[in-house]
Amino acid sequence: MPESSTGTAGPGRPRDAEVDRKALQAAIELYAELGWAKFTLDAVARRAGIGKAAIYRRWAARDRLVSDAMKAALLLPEAVIDTGTLREDLRALARSTMDHYLGPYGLAGLRLHVEARAHPTLFGELAAGIRRTRVLEARAIIRRAIARGELGEQASPSLILDTLVGGLLNHVLATPEELRPEMTAQSARYVEDITTFVLTAAVAIYPPPCPSPG
Amino acid sequence: MPESSTGTAGPGRPRDAEVDRKALQAAIELYAELGWAKFTLDAVARRAGIGKAAIYRRWAARDRLVSDAMKAALLLPEAVIDTGTLREDLRALARSTMDHYLGPYGLAGLRLHVEARAHPTLFGELAAGIRRTRVLEARAIIRRAIARGELGEQASPSLILDTLVGGLLNHVLATPEELRPEMTAQSARYVEDITTFVLTAAVAIYPPPCPSPG
Repeated sequence: MPESSTGTAGPGRPRDAEVDRKALQAAIELYAELGWAKFTLDAVARRAGIGKAAIYRRWAARDRLVSDAMKAALLLPEAVIDTGTLREDLRALARSTMDHYLGPYGLAGLRLHVEARAHPTLFGELAAGIRRTRVLEARAIIRRAIARGELGEQASPSLILDTLVGGLLNHVLATPEELRPEMTAQSARYVEDITTFVLTAAVAIYPPPCPSPG
Repeated sequence: MPESSTGTAGPGRPRDAEVDRKALQAAIELYAELGWAKFTLDAVARRAGIGKAAIYRRWAARDRLVSDAMKAALLLPEAVIDTGTLREDLRALARSTMDHYLGPYGLAGLRLHVEARAHPTLFGELAAGIRRTRVLEARAIIRRAIARGELGEQASPSLILDTLVGGLLNHVLATPEELRPEMTAQSARYVEDITTFVLTAAVAIYPPPCPSPG
């Protein structure tokens, strides 16, 4: 086998980072637009402006390409949120969630979760992996808040996460197309408002233990 | 044109309620599973077990069939929530939202909102219509709560609705397939918890005006 000019590729590994990047980018765009049912390797080659052979050499099946594209877009970088206070942690989580839903991969991620329910064998594991990252991050935020005495021990990460992340999702989904520019422009304000809203409920419902008297 | 045996049909109107019902049911199932890209009138005829001619006679184009099926499944009946208290109204809204996401049309509705962003000219109006019903209902709930003195005048329907409805959506979407039976069994408890959570924040952040002294 001839050595690749870019050097380090072993068997089955992509040998040209730029071709790889274009293919993954085209794959996630097409998946967002078309969904799984109409997603094809040929369409990805056309969109990416690269040869079919290059695609087929890298990905033997379309589910592998969707999976790689999702992992590249949605799993990295795993930002670790740990600012030192619950309010700042929740605000950072809200901001990154809002950026994701407003960004180029928000639609693909949402479609993935919808299609994971229609095709659990194909996408179940991938969707679960993306969820897991989120859930672990949220649990860590709540665990540290409990440790700092900002929340009581019974605080439910799922209720806090669902209202914060789901609230942002609903906000983006419920905004008609013609109001998207305005919603995007005011997103910083909304991130503040929903952070305060969720934090207020969390502290009221899961109050920290009272300091011992004296 | 021969008179239909079921009587009242005018031009273009379905002439057999049972064929109609089967077609709309099959359409919404297929749309939920496949999405728009692979949705065809032929597949609907096969799934419904009725002739292609019957489908094509009723719906000249597939977007009309998806639209009719969505309206039948998602717009009716328009339950009016008006229990007399904010807590009970929010609980009823949470319960009906949870039932929708857990029910047979939840996936179709969610896919519609995803695809309305990818294909705004096709689905934008339909998605907006479904949203409008929801938003008007939520605004009415908040308006009545303000009028009864349960919330301050500045109360934001969108923040309350986003956290309640979006929180339930995230809860259902974030539950792995194998935990769905358990999540469904505990849904009444979750409806209670999220209602209390959102109500607590709403009352704390938008307090009603103080009664005048004396």
